[in-house]
Amino acid sequence: MAKLGFVMCMPLPSPLPPHQNRPPSNSDNTTLCLTRRQSFIFTSSSLLSSYLLMRQNPNLSTTFPSAIAQEIDELDQEETRPVKIFQETSSCVVFIKDLQLTKSPKTTSEVGLAEDENAKVEGTGSGFIWDKFGHIVTNYHVVSKLATDTSGLQRCKVSLVDSAGNSITREGTLIGFDPDYDLAVLKVDAVGNELKAATIGTSRELQVGQSCFAIGNPYGFENTLTTGVISGLGREIPSPNGRAIRGAIQTDAAINAGNSGGPLIDSYGHVIGVNTATFTRKGSGISSGVNFAIPIDTAVRVVPYLIVYGTPYTDRY
Amino acid sequence: MAKLGFVMCMPLPSPLPPHQNRPPSNSDNTTLCLTRRQSFIFTSSSLLSSYLLMRQNPNLSTTFPSAIAQEIDELDQEETRPVKIFQETSSCVVFIKDLQLTKSPKTTSEVGLAEDENAKVEGTGSGFIWDKFGHIVTNYHVVSKLATDTSGLQRCKVSLVDSAGNSITREGTLIGFDPDYDLAVLKVDAVGNELKAATIGTSRELQVGQSCFAIGNPYGFENTLTTGVISGLGREIPSPNGRAIRGAIQTDAAINAGNSGGPLIDSYGHVIGVNTATFTRKGSGISSGVNFAIPIDTAVRVVPYLIVYGTPYTDRY
Amino acid sequence: MAKLGFVMCMPLPSPLPPHQNRPPSNSDNTTLCLTRRQSFIFTSSSLLSSYLLMRQNPNLSTTFPSAIAQEIDELDQEETRPVKIFQETSSCVVFIKDLQLTKSPKTTSEVGLAEDENAKVEGTGSGFIWDKFGHIVTNYHVVSKLATDTSGLQRCKVSLVDSAGNSITREGTLIGFDPDYDLAVLKVDAVGNELKAATIGTSRELQVGQSCFAIGNPYGFENTLTTGVISGLGREIPSPNGRAIRGAIQTDAAINAGNSGGPLIDSYGHVIGVNTATFTRKGSGISSGVNFAIPIDTAVRVVPYLIVYGTPYTDRY
Repeated sequence: MAKLGFVMCMPLPSPLPPHQNRPPSNSDNTTLCLTRRQSFIFTSSSLLSSYLLMRQNPNLSTTFPSAIAQEIDELDQEETRPVKIFQETSSCVVFIKDLQLTKSPKTTSEVGLAEDENAKVEGTGSGFIWDKFGHIVTNYHVVSKLATDTSGLQRCKVSLVDSAGNSITREGTLIGFDPDYDLAVLKVDAVGNELKAATIGTSRELQVGQSCFAIGNPYGFENTLTTGVISGLGREIPSPNGRAIRGAIQTDAAINAGNSGGPLIDSYGHVIGVNTATFTRKGSGISSGVNFAIPIDTAVRVVPYLIVYGTPYTDRY
Repeated sequence: MAKLGFVMCMPLPSPLPPHQNRPPSNSDNTTLCLTRRQSFIFTSSSLLSSYLLMRQNPNLSTTFPSAIAQEIDELDQEETRPVKIFQETSSCVVFIKDLQLTKSPKTTSEVGLAEDENAKVEGTGSGFIWDKFGHIVTNYHVVSKLATDTSGLQRCKVSLVDSAGNSITREGTLIGFDPDYDLAVLKVDAVGNELKAATIGTSRELQVGQSCFAIGNPYGFENTLTTGVISGLGREIPSPNGRAIRGAIQTDAAINAGNSGGPLIDSYGHVIGVNTATFTRKGSGISSGVNFAIPIDTAVRVVPYLIVYGTPYTDRY
Repeated sequence: MAKLGFVMCMPLPSPLPPHQNRPPSNSDNTTLCLTRRQSFIFTSSSLLSSYLLMRQNPNLSTTFPSAIAQEIDELDQEETRPVKIFQETSSCVVFIKDLQLTKSPKTTSEVGLAEDENAKVEGTGSGFIWDKFGHIVTNYHVVSKLATDTSGLQRCKVSLVDSAGNSITREGTLIGFDPDYDLAVLKVDAVGNELKAATIGTSRELQVGQSCFAIGNPYGFENTLTTGVISGLGREIPSPNGRAIRGAIQTDAAINAGNSGGPLIDSYGHVIGVNTATFTRKGSGISSGVNFAIPIDTAVRVVPYLIVYGTPYTDRY
């Protein structure tokens, strides 16, 4: 019998591929160029030419499915919606890396660039930009090592994209955290870069069946979009300290290890939850289709106190 | 090499969370209230106020994605469909618990409430209301312990919602079962409660690619909706006694342990299949995206005989 | 900790069910016949009749969800799109079986039918028809045993459907392969059968969020359709020889063991990628929702050289 249970969606570092959000390579100087509707073929190889010209034969090009073609216009219109949601919201999603320095840094400025030789990656997660002042909301369990660090060697590296499209990486300072709700706030110093804050929605008016979109970094694949519907509302999921987080949103949008802390977004492009857990085989972090997000209303209640007091409201004195 | 194979979607009880279908908590007296389109902020803390007022600044509130906003009207219309399907059909889905009494009950009435002290949960599954007389259709493998019980200690507890929205829990009496088709019929005594029977469709006219909706209780999360398309038709899946169930419907809608016996529904809100199995790593019950339902036409053929004779048609003499 | 990593989507043979693409059985002479909108019931059993007539009572038949019914017309229109895509494109997808003969064949013609006694299935995968001359594109890792065979006992069996709808099975001859890009070309002799080549699209203009469709044979279930969106672009996935395949397409459409080599298709019915890998628990091949396809532009560049030279372009001298 497999051990099943809630799995917080933050992977250990070992299986992580290198960061792979770079755009498709342009260095592939291909001699072939098939566009969506037509085929233009340029080649210097006569042998290839003769073969390829056969493929250009009109009799062969009738494989275009005509029944589908008629619907292209409506299709274009409908398909653009999730595309637009991704384009409008992905720049508010950040990639968080937990680093453990192998030795104490001499200067503070040394830290930000210290990943390769002087630090090892201990885990990764996601987060989203809360405001233009550089506050980042994520799960507590993504930054728990930094929060409980006594060695002074733990760091968080935050990679994000500013409004102008520049990729920047900064150290994240832990502003506050609340294990009861599995929420934490980091702050990055992005002076000189304009940040695009996420548009915060509400989780009170959600309905089972409505579409939702998760953006995050599963297994380190940056800015991954997965889609599904809201599968259930009012769920209880365990927080890192064992208490129940109430009102959690259940979705069948794939949420895998590394998605933790990223936003769950509705069809309006508004953040409705913080992706947190999947119910799956322990140790695997593989999405089962039964996945959970902390309702954004909880974050809206908790985060300002974390920003102002650095602690949960109940601990503020 | 992992052991792969068909896994009947009924979990063992250990990983079950408490039943979590309660509505979102209203006890959270938040001082913040963000609606979908506007932000109203009331707070008594002056420190918080000053911070939060910054967020209310018109210059900051321009994060609403205007390109998306234009499409809100069409969106509302399109999004309501799966929402309506869930609202119209979820009340015909029931939650089934297998109980084993730790000691023989003295009276029959004792049984229904006996879960905590005198019984342990041995498994859970799903089912749906077949008619207003209280007949419940589910998988045979969900109730196989009751069907093969010789100790007199096995029970089935059925939780459902009546037409008026009242949650009721009743003991289910096993009316009939057919391991060949992995189908069984329970009956609950719901006198005084009007039950809403599922609308039965047909599985003969299905087409690969059409949308479908699974409702059930994966890992005990009640009334979970998952969505996908019909991935294949005419599949063969093994029945509990090893014979092949033909004509099975394959779907990529997530079907996990606990979904067994619940309905697969088409876009008309009609039941087209009985969710039964996923092809996955043995012991995990985690949806692979290759999931199966018994065609409803098989249930339509088998169930009336189970109700009338208590046995499959072939065994009726 | 579970071992996670890229898993090439070709299963070992053991868990394979028998080929199950046969149409739903017509041998079930049922006495019940429920159509989608009406119930016609014919039965010779008077006991059943009386029970079933109750179900036909108009008061009971009001379970048809009227709110949903109003939307049926628009629904029909929208639902037909993935249905049409599947109908137009599934006949270009082939099922590939790796066979190892237990003894050397005496004649060549003996091979094609030799599965049961004289050969064992060592793995299965998918592929698609590249042109009407019988060239089949698949992953290199699907046919790597044939490519590296020194015993003369390895074979590939290709099952496909011709334009007239006839199912045919032929031995596949390995024409060329390129482990760097995990691509290979087989050729089947289908003289007398007209083959329908896939419509090749382009992967350059894809956008995260657009719909996509995978067709293949996960766990041996032929012609399985799974759907999702493009989750990411420009990914790097490891090729069988350890080099990076750039520009890979990430999708949340379920891709399981056996999908390897099959096409990823856009909403126009055009092939945009070659389904290749999922990021999951090693050894399981179970879709995590983080799945990858080789961009079709890479295949368009590589495949013609494999057809003409039998080797990658770089090795052609």
